[in-house]
Amino acid sequence: MATDLEIARKATLRPIQEIAARAGIPDDALEPYGKYKAKIGTAFVAEASARPPGALVLVTGISPTPAGEGKTTTTVGLGDALNSLGTRTMICLREPSLGPCFGVKGGATGGGYAQVLPMEDINLHFTGDFHAITSANNLLSAMVDNHLYWGNELGLDPRRVTWRRAMDMNDRNLRDCVVGMGGASQGVVREDGFDITVASEVMAVFCLARDLQDLQERLGRMIVGRRRDGTAVTARDVKADGAMAALLRDALSPNLVQTIEGSPALVHGGPFANIAHGCNSLVATRLGLGLSDVVVTEAGFGADLGAEKFFDIKARMAGLNPACCVIVATVRALKMHGGVAKSDLGREDVVAVERGVVNLARHVENVHKFGVPVVVALNRFTSDTPAEVEAIRAAMARLDTQAILCTHWGDGAAGAQDLARAVQARIASGAARFQPLYPDAMPLADKLRTIAKEVYRAADVSFPAPVIQKLSRWEQEGFGHLPVCVAKTQYSFSADPTALGAPTGHVLPVRDVRLSAGAGFVVAVCGEIMTMPGLPRRPAAETIGLDSDGRIDGLF
Amino acid sequence: MATDLEIARKATLRPIQEIAARAGIPDDALEPYGKYKAKIGTAFVAEASARPPGALVLVTGISPTPAGEGKTTTTVGLGDALNSLGTRTMICLREPSLGPCFGVKGGATGGGYAQVLPMEDINLHFTGDFHAITSANNLLSAMVDNHLYWGNELGLDPRRVTWRRAMDMNDRNLRDCVVGMGGASQGVVREDGFDITVASEVMAVFCLARDLQDLQERLGRMIVGRRRDGTAVTARDVKADGAMAALLRDALSPNLVQTIEGSPALVHGGPFANIAHGCNSLVATRLGLGLSDVVVTEAGFGADLGAEKFFDIKARMAGLNPACCVIVATVRALKMHGGVAKSDLGREDVVAVERGVVNLARHVENVHKFGVPVVVALNRFTSDTPAEVEAIRAAMARLDTQAILCTHWGDGAAGAQDLARAVQARIASGAARFQPLYPDAMPLADKLRTIAKEVYRAADVSFPAPVIQKLSRWEQEGFGHLPVCVAKTQYSFSADPTALGAPTGHVLPVRDVRLSAGAGFVVAVCGEIMTMPGLPRRPAAETIGLDSDGRIDGLF
Repeated sequence: MATDLEIARKATLRPIQEIAARAGIPDDALEPYGKYKAKIGTAFVAEASARPPGALVLVTGISPTPAGEGKTTTTVGLGDALNSLGTRTMICLREPSLGPCFGVKGGATGGGYAQVLPMEDINLHFTGDFHAITSANNLLSAMVDNHLYWGNELGLDPRRVTWRRAMDMNDRNLRDCVVGMGGASQGVVREDGFDITVASEVMAVFCLARDLQDLQERLGRMIVGRRRDGTAVTARDVKADGAMAALLRDALSPNLVQTIEGSPALVHGGPFANIAHGCNSLVATRLGLGLSDVVVTEAGFGADLGAEKFFDIKARMAGLNPACCVIVATVRALKMHGGVAKSDLGREDVVAVERGVVNLARHVENVHKFGVPVVVALNRFTSDTPAEVEAIRAAMARLDTQAILCTHWGDGAAGAQDLARAVQARIASGAARFQPLYPDAMPLADKLRTIAKEVYRAADVSFPAPVIQKLSRWEQEGFGHLPVCVAKTQYSFSADPTALGAPTGHVLPVRDVRLSAGAGFVVAVCGEIMTMPGLPRRPAAETIGLDSDGRIDGLF
Repeated sequence: MATDLEIARKATLRPIQEIAARAGIPDDALEPYGKYKAKIGTAFVAEASARPPGALVLVTGISPTPAGEGKTTTTVGLGDALNSLGTRTMICLREPSLGPCFGVKGGATGGGYAQVLPMEDINLHFTGDFHAITSANNLLSAMVDNHLYWGNELGLDPRRVTWRRAMDMNDRNLRDCVVGMGGASQGVVREDGFDITVASEVMAVFCLARDLQDLQERLGRMIVGRRRDGTAVTARDVKADGAMAALLRDALSPNLVQTIEGSPALVHGGPFANIAHGCNSLVATRLGLGLSDVVVTEAGFGADLGAEKFFDIKARMAGLNPACCVIVATVRALKMHGGVAKSDLGREDVVAVERGVVNLARHVENVHKFGVPVVVALNRFTSDTPAEVEAIRAAMARLDTQAILCTHWGDGAAGAQDLARAVQARIASGAARFQPLYPDAMPLADKLRTIAKEVYRAADVSFPAPVIQKLSRWEQEGFGHLPVCVAKTQYSFSADPTALGAPTGHVLPVRDVRLSAGAGFVVAVCGEIMTMPGLPRRPAAETIGLDSDGRIDGLF
């Protein structure tokens, strides 16, 4: 079987100008980056984003398992299929991070015949957006420490600097460090740490900003630390917001690329789905909606995290109106939710599917609570049996939801046309009545309780006293209207990653809360939260290199 | 008076394809980055670099003073002037670092009517080369620490890891840090530090590599640390060289831009001139030589550092044959070398000029020792008087060297045509008989003594015992043939930055030596060496921002 890289290399890419023309983007709005990538100029973005929007389709998934579901692949396949059926469609995806690429995960550009190209470029530096975000993040750090060094006029407490440095790398050795050592002329000694760039608030701000001005305002609102009296010091206070916005100016223009079948795709921004909201930039989504009849976009992790945040954070802030939600599942993954080990997935086990389908069913029910109709995409594997598929179809039928078999991984657009037709029908029905799960005015703790009960089906939420104090302080400071961004394991509805299927009766343990005043949400840390991954014993980087023609090898 | 940024903004840029055509680069060899920047494809670079080379002109300077000399401006002005006279000329410059840009120095793209454009892009992220170098550097760090974490099969001594992390930022708080804190699952505790990207060995390797294959081989030879028995562990040993080369693949293609007068310029690579050799990439220089009758390029700091290293490191390794050297001076700077304070530079002081011109004279004599003829470029200021200029001319005449007044800052190409004619004449004379100062086979300590005596006119060199031991070990390990790269103050021929003019009789104190096995030189640290600058009390970043049209403001 051909690898993703081999398939990608065999594809014939069209000049990006041709893809742009297909998407209704004129030549003079393009800033080409090589022959197959382009940024789209600010003036055109502003104009096109103001047009009446197309229909927004969110692709999300069941609770992820090691069996894999294929969410990005389905996003691409569905977009290709809609285009092949004559629906003018834009695909909106996140940019991949270098960290996972050199670690275990490989790239994040889809797979098989449902990929965005050029995959080597997109997976490595692409158009430099993440480097710009890293630079902006670290300029702020340098200016904060420089402020402390030169006398600390703002009275910032060095022990209460919460702003961390960033690097687009899996590097566990940078999680916790002590900086400023070496004597008085070398800075101010304090504890610090690095997060992977995608986990930084700058990334979240970048992805939620409407335009450059909004970007700079949000950057300025970011809190870098607090004084001894507890009052906040912001990026604007240290005068970093202007230079950060300058560093991010070009980056904020969305990136246009193409799928293997020639569909246009905007690949732009990529915040983590735990500490942030986990979907591509608002700028790209709005541009896509202005340019197309349909935008297909993706949210990170399972629907309990990705879709909930997409609805309650991004759609709420930006006034987006999702028309349809696609939940991706596989027979194999649902079997794992039904208790089957990965090594036994090859055997037919209808009972396990029936046990595991409760995970999918709950995600469907949850999305319905937001007023958004659902279509289930079943990514087909050769080991799936008709009885197993039928078990899923039957369970979905009880929720008035179609489950459609898809083979776009191997067949491209043709393999997702059934799915595309079902999505078209859902959009045409006008059934969506989108609303966020909770109102802005609800107290922060109650917002968390609402998510826990309605989406995770927890019996209760436990708040330690310091968390209650923080939430109450932030409400006094005027941040009570913000939505909540839950950071918990993606593997379960609960905070226990081993509780597969559809657990109930659990208690959601809120360990800590963090205020992202620039991004505009409160992060609730429930369980372990990883903001700087490590490399495995044998990192993928060891086998990545150049072949004799100077092409990049070993990416997958 | 218009600022550099205002002049830059008023310029009408030509499409980069037009500039490329002027330089003999076909459209299909271009990878455009926006409308006014392009990378040049590897295949064309290889083909064009193999053509018979044009003449190589090195622009260097007197020992720098706070009065400023204008080396980059002269490089650009001379290139423009040569082109205006019909000599097909390519300008080769270093890429600026983000650090100084946000600190005190501002950008590094020339000034007045002798600039390379688009200056905002070049000064900020440009085509992402430095970000790629930072990523490659830090991937190696992550893989080294990951190796220690997973059991340290190679037996690397964590206390002897010499490989440091990098960031393209002025950030003194990262000079010395302790990483890997937080417990057993968070890595391995050890001392570490960050250098600014331009000071990293990856940058030096990048700028000395002939092609991708040579790049990967050099990266693999870089030493990351040593075992308890003193034997070296390399980047190849930790299997990082392939992924690093993959990260640097696109970056190694030279960047084409234009001057304000439409000359082509290759702006590519930018190693520090203390811990590294301080000139643009060899790939760009060789491409320029293959494409043009003349390449005008620049070396960092004064000629004692920049030109010496250009000749003894870059030209030696690559077999380059410099045809002429331009030494940039100003009346004001020579007055400072003659003892005048910066505040008194406005007054005529012929005696001070005569006292200070010894600095220029010694640089001229030194360059002559390499067999390269010299033309002196005197950047004119309005305060210069005819008697002061004449004093310089007379001193240069005694060295059989022309000193030419230049006004390209205000007049563009027209202001450097006299200089260009003098350079043309020197090239046409065929007078150059380039040879490095010392042979490869000379012992490392003797190479240092030779530079100290011949170039710095020191009476002697002092070597502490540990330095002697290191040099001797490296000679046993097979590194004795490498050239030496001196890191000392740029403000004086001696190691004492206050000893202006032309000091003699001093002793060069070698404090430490470092082996750059990938770049291929031994660094001799003489005095303070700064590999991570700090920000000033009021960093330039505070006033950099976006104007109401989204243009970048505050760069200079």
